[in-house]
Amino acid sequence: MPRFFVAASNIGNGAALLTGSDAQHVKVLRMKLGERLVICDGNGTDHHCRITKLGDGHVEAEILETRPCPAEPTVKCTVLAGFPKGERSDYLVQKCTEVGASEIIFFVSKRCVSRPDGKGLAKKLTRWQRIAEEAAKQSGRGIIPRVSALGSFVEALDKAVKSDLALFMYETGQRISLRQALEAAGRIKSVSVITGPEGGFEQHEADIAAAAGLKLCSMGERILRCETAPVVALSAIMYATDNL
Amino acid sequence: MPRFFVAASNIGNGAALLTGSDAQHVKVLRMKLGERLVICDGNGTDHHCRITKLGDGHVEAEILETRPCPAEPTVKCTVLAGFPKGERSDYLVQKCTEVGASEIIFFVSKRCVSRPDGKGLAKKLTRWQRIAEEAAKQSGRGIIPRVSALGSFVEALDKAVKSDLALFMYETGQRISLRQALEAAGRIKSVSVITGPEGGFEQHEADIAAAAGLKLCSMGERILRCETAPVVALSAIMYATDNL
Repeated sequence: MPRFFVAASNIGNGAALLTGSDAQHVKVLRMKLGERLVICDGNGTDHHCRITKLGDGHVEAEILETRPCPAEPTVKCTVLAGFPKGERSDYLVQKCTEVGASEIIFFVSKRCVSRPDGKGLAKKLTRWQRIAEEAAKQSGRGIIPRVSALGSFVEALDKAVKSDLALFMYETGQRISLRQALEAAGRIKSVSVITGPEGGFEQHEADIAAAAGLKLCSMGERILRCETAPVVALSAIMYATDNL
Repeated sequence: MPRFFVAASNIGNGAALLTGSDAQHVKVLRMKLGERLVICDGNGTDHHCRITKLGDGHVEAEILETRPCPAEPTVKCTVLAGFPKGERSDYLVQKCTEVGASEIIFFVSKRCVSRPDGKGLAKKLTRWQRIAEEAAKQSGRGIIPRVSALGSFVEALDKAVKSDLALFMYETGQRISLRQALEAAGRIKSVSVITGPEGGFEQHEADIAAAAGLKLCSMGERILRCETAPVVALSAIMYATDNL
């Protein structure tokens, strides 16, 4: 069923209102009066609706049933990734949204080749947020993961340690396996995963992460591309927390 | 360290030989006499080598050490996917190779929009095999997953049931979770995963798969794109079998 995300202010009194590009999308889908759609508040609640009015630039729908979105994972996953080059970041946003990330944050680390800022970054953030919204609609999510950027590695660590479990994916040296880290953590409500840019992290970055309390983890001996690593980590987290 | 796959006939008497595009690649990398590389037999064995001769169109290397490739998973995973449209298939091949597939097989099912055959298919298979080789090199694999195609859904089922565990990913109806399926299976040496094309499978296809002995599985309530589903399934399998 078509899914739309609207602001809470567009929902009330047993009805919901679609405007702008959402109303346009209903038109493109050639939906008719009486047809069903899901209007989500972007906060995990789905309103199952029936179209009652197809206006010029707005669509009204009667709410038939309201329930929690079943697709939202029971664990809040924050993905923090060193800026990848080019289209890899688009891919990362799309796939992490599908698999269940609640937030996606890019940051600059030592080996980042891509270091967008100013207008370039603003443009990219708009693009990534649109990709996240599309992926959230398609995969049936109850939220649109927020995509943002941090200017430094240390800010990324600060953000990560706020979760119940903070994982730092690192390719060499003393580490535990992702499975060991997840099993040792037991029941968690939130987890952060930090992954590196194309060239990975430097040893001193891993040292700082470990000192900040993050768990240095491996994901086996296969070297994953920077856009693949967070998707694999999220999949493992979903599996370990009974969300797969 | 640069990694090359060569035929067994190019390895022997404590030395290995690179020719053709591999020799060309050594040149592009500007490697010099004495530099190290890994030459893999494509059968899970790595030869750590030192360059002893840089010829015109061929490179000779002395084998310093031979050992099993550490990146090969302990479980043999066959991915069987309904033909996806366009570039999604490229992505599927690349990511499944990174994550640890041992074989990737496309097949035609009821809702496939893409149904390549004849010359078109031959061209695609060549392209996919090249993508698999590149991804195997980059991720440090000890084999290059073979990419092939089957003409029918039933052939895909026949292939899948040859594994210790055969999973059929299905979006609705009576299913168990992927985790339940993997935990119930206990120790397995091989697993097959069948995923659908863009439109998923029809109910009667799921019925046939169940009758053939495959386990109908869900991967949670999020609807995954056809190129994402096998990557998530493989990640879960790697996690469950201690390969993550």
